[in-house]
Amino acid sequence: MFSGTQFSLYPMTADFVPAILRGIAALDAYAGRIRRETDDLSTLLVGPPELVVRAMRDAFVATAGSGGHVVLAGTLSRGCPGESDDPICSAIPIRPPDPGEDLVAAALARHAPAPRAGLAVAAQISLYPLGTEAHMARIGACIDFLKAAGVFDRSKNFCTKLKGDASDVFAAIERCYLDFAPANAHVVLTITVSAGSPTKG
Amino acid sequence: MFSGTQFSLYPMTADFVPAILRGIAALDAYAGRIRRETDDLSTLLVGPPELVVRAMRDAFVATAGSGGHVVLAGTLSRGCPGESDDPICSAIPIRPPDPGEDLVAAALARHAPAPRAGLAVAAQISLYPLGTEAHMARIGACIDFLKAAGVFDRSKNFCTKLKGDASDVFAAIERCYLDFAPANAHVVLTITVSAGSPTKG
Repeated sequence: MFSGTQFSLYPMTADFVPAILRGIAALDAYAGRIRRETDDLSTLLVGPPELVVRAMRDAFVATAGSGGHVVLAGTLSRGCPGESDDPICSAIPIRPPDPGEDLVAAALARHAPAPRAGLAVAAQISLYPLGTEAHMARIGACIDFLKAAGVFDRSKNFCTKLKGDASDVFAAIERCYLDFAPANAHVVLTITVSAGSPTKG
Repeated sequence: MFSGTQFSLYPMTADFVPAILRGIAALDAYAGRIRRETDDLSTLLVGPPELVVRAMRDAFVATAGSGGHVVLAGTLSRGCPGESDDPICSAIPIRPPDPGEDLVAAALARHAPAPRAGLAVAAQISLYPLGTEAHMARIGACIDFLKAAGVFDRSKNFCTKLKGDASDVFAAIERCYLDFAPANAHVVLTITVSAGSPTKG
């Protein structure tokens, strides 16, 4: 299994370079568990799906926590058949739901946000279960989970808008990514997370 | 058929509001042909797939053309079975390839960049043909087209990196979005387009 993300931090300030580097530095806490590589467009993280989401959260909070308008945009991917298996990605196995288990109830039972980050965010996400004709049903269950988890803001065309503390929103994103497709499925999740926008949501 | 995008402009400057509004104003040229709506996270465009890509190009060039580091990130979607049909989206029909036609050759024959924008960009894109088990073959053909079209930079995990003048890159994106899945298929294409990064690619 291969799993990871390409994600970017966009601090809307002329001092964007140190702000981005602050986010990247937060990834050092995952050294040895996540492989990473940064170029002019994005940072690649390769590792277990749930750790990758947490690393993105920590990078975003490190960049956005000191104020200003900052956006994280990223694409998470697991199980892509075009990528080679990598043992680092399977260090924490994905737990598939028990046969017959309700997907929304299972995700809610596993939903465990970290302590509050103290950073209010707006976000929008889209889940893409690939290689299956059942993708719309899985997307629908995922949206039901977001409503039950308390981070749902509203439905938009092509995506679902979320709001809440950064810890709650990223914890919900983690469940969306892990719990609505089989362990070995090809799943993509796109996320946009914003703090400090001068525009009202 | 429903088609559109949620996209955002990220100018890395404290004066990001007027820079974003300059991009939004460029969309006025599509009034009546594209419906739009902006909130704190993104701008929704609803309209024919090829016009939507061109509108994103014009918005990006309007914001980024005067210098500085600017990124556009967006998700294009057509044929989503969860969205209602909208006649505005079908005003320019998608032309499916002729039976037996080579997808790469057909895309190359239709590839017609606008006059050069005079703006060098780096980009990365990912094509997601949904609701089909044939998605990897379509993605592979799309990458072959990008190589033949002269905008391919390199393969990255989860995406393909492009480079060139903004007109060439957006014209290639338009073909990727239109030509590698049937006219009525559910297709998602994510794009990140960057100008003025201080980091070398």
